[in-house]
Amino acid sequence: MANTDPESSRAADDLIARAARLDADDPLAHCRARFVLPEAMIYLDGNSLGAYPASVGVRLDDVLNRQWSQRLIRSWDEGWWETPERVGDRIAGLVGAARGQVVVGDSTSVNIFKLAIAGARMRPDRTRIVIDSASFPTDGYIVDSVARLLGLAVTRADQSDLDNVLGDDVALALLNHVDYRTGKLWDMASLTRSVHNCGAVALWDVCHSVGVVPLQFDALDVELAVGCTYKYLNGGPGAPAFLYVREDLHDALDQPLTGWHGHVDPFGMQSDYEPAAGIIRGRVGSPPLLSMLALDAALDAYDGVSLADARAKTQSVTGIFIDALDRSLAPGVIEIATPRDSSQRAGQVSIAHPRARELVHELIPLGVLADFREPDIIRCGFSPLYIGHTDAVNAVRALASLLNQ
Amino acid sequence: MANTDPESSRAADDLIARAARLDADDPLAHCRARFVLPEAMIYLDGNSLGAYPASVGVRLDDVLNRQWSQRLIRSWDEGWWETPERVGDRIAGLVGAARGQVVVGDSTSVNIFKLAIAGARMRPDRTRIVIDSASFPTDGYIVDSVARLLGLAVTRADQSDLDNVLGDDVALALLNHVDYRTGKLWDMASLTRSVHNCGAVALWDVCHSVGVVPLQFDALDVELAVGCTYKYLNGGPGAPAFLYVREDLHDALDQPLTGWHGHVDPFGMQSDYEPAAGIIRGRVGSPPLLSMLALDAALDAYDGVSLADARAKTQSVTGIFIDALDRSLAPGVIEIATPRDSSQRAGQVSIAHPRARELVHELIPLGVLADFREPDIIRCGFSPLYIGHTDAVNAVRALASLLNQ
Repeated sequence: MANTDPESSRAADDLIARAARLDADDPLAHCRARFVLPEAMIYLDGNSLGAYPASVGVRLDDVLNRQWSQRLIRSWDEGWWETPERVGDRIAGLVGAARGQVVVGDSTSVNIFKLAIAGARMRPDRTRIVIDSASFPTDGYIVDSVARLLGLAVTRADQSDLDNVLGDDVALALLNHVDYRTGKLWDMASLTRSVHNCGAVALWDVCHSVGVVPLQFDALDVELAVGCTYKYLNGGPGAPAFLYVREDLHDALDQPLTGWHGHVDPFGMQSDYEPAAGIIRGRVGSPPLLSMLALDAALDAYDGVSLADARAKTQSVTGIFIDALDRSLAPGVIEIATPRDSSQRAGQVSIAHPRARELVHELIPLGVLADFREPDIIRCGFSPLYIGHTDAVNAVRALASLLNQ
Repeated sequence: MANTDPESSRAADDLIARAARLDADDPLAHCRARFVLPEAMIYLDGNSLGAYPASVGVRLDDVLNRQWSQRLIRSWDEGWWETPERVGDRIAGLVGAARGQVVVGDSTSVNIFKLAIAGARMRPDRTRIVIDSASFPTDGYIVDSVARLLGLAVTRADQSDLDNVLGDDVALALLNHVDYRTGKLWDMASLTRSVHNCGAVALWDVCHSVGVVPLQFDALDVELAVGCTYKYLNGGPGAPAFLYVREDLHDALDQPLTGWHGHVDPFGMQSDYEPAAGIIRGRVGSPPLLSMLALDAALDAYDGVSLADARAKTQSVTGIFIDALDRSLAPGVIEIATPRDSSQRAGQVSIAHPRARELVHELIPLGVLADFREPDIIRCGFSPLYIGHTDAVNAVRALASLLNQ
């Protein structure tokens, strides 16, 4: 057993001491108190379902007991109606977007559908959609459906091979910022340039990077993007997703889910659809307000947080996690599927092991909650707001105690 | 002023006495205690936003403080994942459907989009969609978008004229069970027969009847339906909508929002979309669970409620409301836009008046909350669970005090 000999025991002590020093210097350490988490639990699944921010309960109490119960229908005129744009503007601040370009509502899948059709319609003479072959599966399912409706072809390609499949017949490229399986972070700047070089529209899925990587939609001229709010943004189970559309494209945005909330005059009850100006045309029907206002409250956990700090912390925490794995386990016991170059990681480290599914279960009684992904991946997510270096080292100790038996 | 002469004063006393007798015999009177409503407020807008059931707060407390906060990601395996079908089965009991045919999720607009495309695809050789010209506008906007995507034509027609516009080129007819403006309840049995006579698929929008009218989807062989849960079902602001698909059509259901939650093996992460068996293929992405579990709790307010009782009560309450209007106001002061035959009303009475918008505002300090709809309609909704005959008569008193000045 690796930890019984004096040398590795000293090495483990060194790591713990280093982790403690790094945690003591963590400018985001105070954010942990914004969450309610189980006692004696290291939660490494914030990339699947973010932890519970205490602000959510306070807000929902007000939403239920004052707004819904007492103000009733009047609450729609007292702030509810504008919630999708208002919360969108808060998210804009996390994705490098000026206000008025992000709106919240519907699921990521539905938003991909809207923007894939709208994006393809921006290039009506082109016949093909390119999609990252390692994308989260729903992205591909939706793109296939869009292609069928519009009579387009779909090309699946590894993002490293993107330049070879792009061409002047490509209308749209749907790219994932992070590989959900390996945790690899792709270079949004260079891939967006590639898409633009062939004259296509870039649609980015940032579900696994928003909140841990500083995004720069405006600076990179990204046309379209979608993202998730229930992972690092801690919006709660199934919290509504968001979509981003570059401002100069709003007038041309022709999305197929032409619901009344996207109408220029929703209470005019006109018989023809005339889309609202601006990002509002990304709205469809009545948004699920309890979930959306919970998300609004959850975003308070990011108040005052520098995303540069969040990025630096996540790189450092995932770094010590990989260090600890290297030192605690004999070579070849696991494979680290995530790049060792921290510039190519977001908030996640994926560990491949034949018994991954069982290990995820066996970690729970040891106080570590991680995630399994087919076929053999233990996915560990490191939220910069509530996971520190000591947590990372202790999680490895737990895993090592299982693997070094 | 009408109420100062002895005769009309006696008539008003008679009405109040009659209302009190009817309320004393109301088998649903106990349901009022299931809601928290403002003091001294007659809430006649439950057809826009249902009132707040006390059960919702209790449930959300558990969802936040035990499930999300403490069980975290494990909650998905502890009941969250199946919520759309489970809540759907509860709604099935309210729409005359056997279990396994209703699923909850997305907005009404999104569900219309799914089912209008799926319905049209069931009749691939036909070229036209017919829609009720008085439908809630979003229905028409969505159908226009669907027709554009599929290359179909759209015919708008009054439902009274349906037989004249149906033909063997019609793939789908989208019909509203209740006219949102006038409150007229249409005959689902005869209109569905008309649609079937021409070989088309019937898609019903029951947003304004579910919860107040006993529906019979199975008995009437309705193929497809959508409905809202934040009106009479009290699911909360923007609560997810539902969709119904007749069981024998599940295998053929080919809906365009092919998200991973509708996949036969959502965690298999396969690259091709293979829809799940049954109604699950109506699901798309992660559902907004706080809103959906609030709806689940809200449905407790219907526990033990006979929809026949709900129907009888609503007909009686809207009846005494119309009686009171007739007796309290001089002829011609208002126009009652809703049919006087109670078999042709659901839960709503619409009053037309040139100053409708102002009157709705002036009623609020008098303790009556109703709804305005363009151009000149005061919409009054009567939930069978928390509005009684005395409320109806007192609401007319308030309106008369404004109109008889």
